[in-house]
Amino acid sequence: MDEGPSITGRDVVTLDTFSAEEIRSVIARARRMKVEGHGSPLRGRSLAMVFFDPSLRTRASFAIAFSTLGGTVIDLVAGRDLWPLEMREGAVMDDVADEHVRDAARVLSEYADVIAIRALAREGDWAQERRDRVIVSFQKHATVPIFNMESVLDHPCQAWGDALTLEEEFGDLAGRKIVLGWTYHPKARPLAVPHGVSTMACKLGMDLTVCHPAGYPLDARVRQSLGHTAASSGGSIRYVEALDEAVDGADVVYAASWGSTDLHGRPEKERALRDAHRDRRLTTDLMRGTNAARFMHAMPIRRNVEADDAVVDAPGSLIVAQAGNRLHIQRALFQAILGA
Amino acid sequence: MDEGPSITGRDVVTLDTFSAEEIRSVIARARRMKVEGHGSPLRGRSLAMVFFDPSLRTRASFAIAFSTLGGTVIDLVAGRDLWPLEMREGAVMDDVADEHVRDAARVLSEYADVIAIRALAREGDWAQERRDRVIVSFQKHATVPIFNMESVLDHPCQAWGDALTLEEEFGDLAGRKIVLGWTYHPKARPLAVPHGVSTMACKLGMDLTVCHPAGYPLDARVRQSLGHTAASSGGSIRYVEALDEAVDGADVVYAASWGSTDLHGRPEKERALRDAHRDRRLTTDLMRGTNAARFMHAMPIRRNVEADDAVVDAPGSLIVAQAGNRLHIQRALFQAILGA
Amino acid sequence: MDEGPSITGRDVVTLDTFSAEEIRSVIARARRMKVEGHGSPLRGRSLAMVFFDPSLRTRASFAIAFSTLGGTVIDLVAGRDLWPLEMREGAVMDDVADEHVRDAARVLSEYADVIAIRALAREGDWAQERRDRVIVSFQKHATVPIFNMESVLDHPCQAWGDALTLEEEFGDLAGRKIVLGWTYHPKARPLAVPHGVSTMACKLGMDLTVCHPAGYPLDARVRQSLGHTAASSGGSIRYVEALDEAVDGADVVYAASWGSTDLHGRPEKERALRDAHRDRRLTTDLMRGTNAARFMHAMPIRRNVEADDAVVDAPGSLIVAQAGNRLHIQRALFQAILGA
Repeated sequence: MDEGPSITGRDVVTLDTFSAEEIRSVIARARRMKVEGHGSPLRGRSLAMVFFDPSLRTRASFAIAFSTLGGTVIDLVAGRDLWPLEMREGAVMDDVADEHVRDAARVLSEYADVIAIRALAREGDWAQERRDRVIVSFQKHATVPIFNMESVLDHPCQAWGDALTLEEEFGDLAGRKIVLGWTYHPKARPLAVPHGVSTMACKLGMDLTVCHPAGYPLDARVRQSLGHTAASSGGSIRYVEALDEAVDGADVVYAASWGSTDLHGRPEKERALRDAHRDRRLTTDLMRGTNAARFMHAMPIRRNVEADDAVVDAPGSLIVAQAGNRLHIQRALFQAILGA
Repeated sequence: MDEGPSITGRDVVTLDTFSAEEIRSVIARARRMKVEGHGSPLRGRSLAMVFFDPSLRTRASFAIAFSTLGGTVIDLVAGRDLWPLEMREGAVMDDVADEHVRDAARVLSEYADVIAIRALAREGDWAQERRDRVIVSFQKHATVPIFNMESVLDHPCQAWGDALTLEEEFGDLAGRKIVLGWTYHPKARPLAVPHGVSTMACKLGMDLTVCHPAGYPLDARVRQSLGHTAASSGGSIRYVEALDEAVDGADVVYAASWGSTDLHGRPEKERALRDAHRDRRLTTDLMRGTNAARFMHAMPIRRNVEADDAVVDAPGSLIVAQAGNRLHIQRALFQAILGA
Repeated sequence: MDEGPSITGRDVVTLDTFSAEEIRSVIARARRMKVEGHGSPLRGRSLAMVFFDPSLRTRASFAIAFSTLGGTVIDLVAGRDLWPLEMREGAVMDDVADEHVRDAARVLSEYADVIAIRALAREGDWAQERRDRVIVSFQKHATVPIFNMESVLDHPCQAWGDALTLEEEFGDLAGRKIVLGWTYHPKARPLAVPHGVSTMACKLGMDLTVCHPAGYPLDARVRQSLGHTAASSGGSIRYVEALDEAVDGADVVYAASWGSTDLHGRPEKERALRDAHRDRRLTTDLMRGTNAARFMHAMPIRRNVEADDAVVDAPGSLIVAQAGNRLHIQRALFQAILGA
């Protein structure tokens, strides 16, 4: 069976490090496994999941994907199962940190064949947070592949599963019009999903419209990278402020909410800016302007705040399929990365 | 091999929805599996356990039952792994709830072949609490079978395992005299076990005596239902206040403690009522009035408060066998419900 | 295949209850399994891990060892999954304890083929704490083998894995010079590792130097036992205060830090005594006096506090191999104890 280009041993931290051919090859593998089933190719292998932040969908789908392939999963929660980690090289560790990330990563590499990390932004300045220090440190010190279960900057398995969901709807995605639409949410949500989904759309040659109010741009370096990616894939990217303008003729409307990077770590100011957009949500009216668009969201979704029930539960809503495809894309990725 | 009537795909939320024949058929299956062993019929299947309340016996026995049959188990803790859930249909979700139970249930149904829920009563009024909103909502929205790992109203796997334990002692249970005896406990304990055990006894044609002080009746609608069940099974149910009167001639004394539904959500008043019965416990003296009765308890048991050490550790005490049979009845149930 | 003397059904609570031949036989089994691999000999078996204290290495390596051999693991956290336990026989349980350890141990024995316990010292007086009440109670009441995942007094799987690591370096360990060297740590660390490693060294006929500042002796009864063990194994044990004197000519320097048993439960006084030794750490200078010694540590290690980066990362540092060998020694032990 032709499995396409080998990605064995690679880290899965962002789609940006994978070619369109590699991304499509994993999707094809996932679609085959959905039809043909899977045996127990990961018997005797183990996955260590390390959570610096809570998780439902990702924890459940990672654990079930790996273990239904015959593998063993352990679930470690930072602050409960992990010692406080020192990240600085050469530090004199006489403060709160009990273990250096170098040692934690090397030890976990002795026990597990893959390490998966979830570590979102803290309250620091965005320029600091965007360095994604936890996952980058594990990448540096671990001797086994690292999976990103959502970091400050990216959420590649969400985006890869979304691409699977879209291919199941549309076949080839090149030239399809997708809108990433900022909607109101009472909390400042992470940028990982918007970044991951945008990267996926640009990699696969889609025509991407990123739509958000003033003050809510994607990270500047990610924007730069998206521009290059779209240019080389034959896709396009544009930025639009008004939601009704953005969704005009769209094949896909992907609702998401995210915080202001400029005001990251200043929650009061951020809230004031965000609250000016309390009514920004996807309605049936807005969806009428689209090309009978599919509705997408990474969940959890705030019903009747981010999108009306009528949109969330419409026949064109893909949100449950998206969540389900997390399982399938991750099964395909584990097999491909472990060469199993 | 004759497996009896099929219950594949059913929810296991209360014994009330199962016929006596179905209940006995699962017990027979469990007894066969205890003798003949089991292979790995659940390979590739997965169970999502969702805990809104802590658990030892249930968590351990559910997880081990499912996974020693070859399946995969994930353990999700509400408030740690789950977002706060909105239960109301059509709600504008601008408050604390981050996810609608409809979406959580549908997503978990994508990942798991069975969802098991533990959700006890909160501090609300009993008329509200008895609606068992969490488990009923999951039943409504999930697309896979739901197992009750103890809800406000019932604890069917405890009761089913207890029936297995009793059949191992007595064979056919019809006409056996069982006493459900309220004993003192420093906390107001849930009603799920008393309800479940009573339902089991009535379903299987036992002569049930429910014995409790004034102010501690079982839930009114459950009592009504028990009456109908006993009438149609050839069993009987009676209510007695004095423990020595109740246990006279009993084959089984099942000790339990539970809170006052009238005073639910008013802990100070409830405690005052309960504390009048501090000395109500099972003693060797009381057991002398029985027909050499077996002693049962769902555990955890407060020794020398609910029952004396001499009763708990007597040869006729079945408490360890009861706990062990949780594993066996749940193995049989998982196989029967999943048609595996 | 000659598996050596049978240790099936035994508790693994301290190396002190195993003969040198038994210890070496498990090491030999682990070395064979590292080369030849392992199948799924524990299919259908289950391990209940009970944590009264947090853990990374032990939790991960126990869970992965057992489950990659085909078994099922459940992870129970006291205070979350367990009820508060009563330890006293005959107690009237009208206080905070909801369950007696006798009942918890008997119930877990119904579900699991092995119970593993982690329970470190609390704030009590050392004479009380050293009785190791939790693990001793589980040993007394459980009907399946107990594994010690670190108790007040010992950490046998750490020590056994360390012996595997040392045999891989040196072959036969008899007559090798090992120094257990106390180093500064901002917290009063447990004595389990120093006790376990000392016992291992004495059992295997090594020449052990225990080196610590005044006020930091090992437990008195453990010292007594070590003396007998060394005498009968052909090894030796001596106590030295100065680190430079101790490491002279050493083949192995095992760095560790531990609290003062005399001041156990009096943290302010203990800290004052300990803080006088802030500069006591392993440096490259100190290592120059050794016989090109290997550096060992049970981790987590405070870099540049317990030992300099240059020592921790030197070619002779075995710390990652030690952690890795936890997995291998535990696989061998589970097989040997379960007779699988």
